[in-house]
Amino acid sequence: MASGEYTRDQRYIATRITADGRDGYPVEPGRYRLVVSRACPWANRAIIVRRLLGLEDVLSMGVAGPTHDERSWSFGLDPGGRDPVLGIERLQEAFLSRFPGYDKGITVPAIVDVPSGAVVTNDFAQLTIDLSLEWTAFHRPGAPRLYPAELRDEIDEVNAVVFRDVNNGVYRAGFASSQDAYEKAYQQLFDRLDWLSDRLANQRYLVGDAITEADVRLFTTLARFDAVYHGHFKCNRSKLSEMPVLWAYARDLFQTPGFGDTIDFAQIKEHYYVVHRTINPTGIVPAGPDPSGWLTPHGRESLGGRPFGDGTPPVSDR
Amino acid sequence: MASGEYTRDQRYIATRITADGRDGYPVEPGRYRLVVSRACPWANRAIIVRRLLGLEDVLSMGVAGPTHDERSWSFGLDPGGRDPVLGIERLQEAFLSRFPGYDKGITVPAIVDVPSGAVVTNDFAQLTIDLSLEWTAFHRPGAPRLYPAELRDEIDEVNAVVFRDVNNGVYRAGFASSQDAYEKAYQQLFDRLDWLSDRLANQRYLVGDAITEADVRLFTTLARFDAVYHGHFKCNRSKLSEMPVLWAYARDLFQTPGFGDTIDFAQIKEHYYVVHRTINPTGIVPAGPDPSGWLTPHGRESLGGRPFGDGTPPVSDR
Repeated sequence: MASGEYTRDQRYIATRITADGRDGYPVEPGRYRLVVSRACPWANRAIIVRRLLGLEDVLSMGVAGPTHDERSWSFGLDPGGRDPVLGIERLQEAFLSRFPGYDKGITVPAIVDVPSGAVVTNDFAQLTIDLSLEWTAFHRPGAPRLYPAELRDEIDEVNAVVFRDVNNGVYRAGFASSQDAYEKAYQQLFDRLDWLSDRLANQRYLVGDAITEADVRLFTTLARFDAVYHGHFKCNRSKLSEMPVLWAYARDLFQTPGFGDTIDFAQIKEHYYVVHRTINPTGIVPAGPDPSGWLTPHGRESLGGRPFGDGTPPVSDR
Repeated sequence: MASGEYTRDQRYIATRITADGRDGYPVEPGRYRLVVSRACPWANRAIIVRRLLGLEDVLSMGVAGPTHDERSWSFGLDPGGRDPVLGIERLQEAFLSRFPGYDKGITVPAIVDVPSGAVVTNDFAQLTIDLSLEWTAFHRPGAPRLYPAELRDEIDEVNAVVFRDVNNGVYRAGFASSQDAYEKAYQQLFDRLDWLSDRLANQRYLVGDAITEADVRLFTTLARFDAVYHGHFKCNRSKLSEMPVLWAYARDLFQTPGFGDTIDFAQIKEHYYVVHRTINPTGIVPAGPDPSGWLTPHGRESLGGRPFGDGTPPVSDR
């Protein structure tokens, strides 16, 4: 490992909510609460997948505010500063309720068991896969197949390099504590973005001809690129809006129901610029960039593909 | 003054080097040394004007390194870490030599009297005007008229608003210590850039039909915009390269002899990102942006104008 390299703490709670309940937490409508922050790219994946699959009525959602202190994400956006279903002020309480003395990261997304108030899992990578594969009994009619068996190997392969070089790569650039570690992460990031541009030049989606888990995972990083990663994390070879293929791909997804409607640029910017005082000591939040470009025509329809495959878009007012 | 607003210390040494020597420092070839840093936009003005006017042989130039500590700019780029003409390690020495106990800013550009080793002036705004008006006896044949009498009022008027909102405006955004002060500076900056875009849409230069002091002053800020001010100072409504008129105007100047050949992007980035630890605690210098766009065609010739008026470009190998 290069000196000064940032390493993500990847010790998550591995308990799963499954159809067969083998970990003690069976899929059950109304029993669980998904806790997210609109700022966080990892939580954003779960927000998108929940909405694409139409799980809103069976899996409720609590929204932590964009900023947090050292102790935990908290529910400052809610009346009285408490999540209205869990009755807690800080997400930490749900972690301590299950594991007294829990000393690893208090992260979103997390799923909490409402009756006991205890967190079940915060394993963001497994969490969205399980929404696709374990919650099928409660998917809406027309829900897309985000992790279809026949594409799984290819999705996994793409996800692995996108995670390393892009999703986590922007953090490795931004949180590097040496020039060398930063430059290595920057190079890997833009090499991978060039690779993705090539891959997406003639195909509308990352894998197959419809949206999948792979697109969800890339999208939540791209959505934050110009607003945060370009400046705050020094990922500044170019803006996303200066990479024509990726920018059109990202706009196409943004304009697809279930994607752009989950994005809150104000909360995203506030989170990064206020929380990371070690790289932005003043806590001042940039006023730019102008986000109106996200709604401009992308022209990707001509590449074919069907966003929802044999399915349908989520209802637009949910 | 809004709370948290950055105010530039504008107490400079007002002594002038004039043709008549009324302040005790007459224009004289070989007597003075211009001290600059290639990183600094205020010094960059003097580098450009000296070169446009062909004063290289009569006014030598010392180049301080891109970074400095609290005490002063220093000559780390020179052999032995000393300016080869002045024999000093730090510019501070020349200030103390004239004013023992000098407690105001040690700034570049500065002009030092070589025989005494004492600084004469660091008044950057007057300094370039004096190169144009007081050093005329030593201008090269074909030197442009950068501050012609008939355009002086208009140049002064443009310079005043460009200084307030753009040259110093980027610093007011970047060094603001409150969100309100930052947003006010940001708004003024981009309003002024929009105004400049309108002004330059149908005329090649800011005042008249040839380059003047006004273009020099705007250029040195624009040259640093995407490399530093966009990210480091949070001037991020858009990049310069996303403002078509200003970007073409800036490239036109960059490609004009005397302008782009004074720009060192590596030193510029190193200066801001390493020196300003209060806004970039890690001191890590961004690897981007790609500067190759500066050399692309700008198409501004079709607006007419003659860069050097009745004069000629400086010799290209100086």
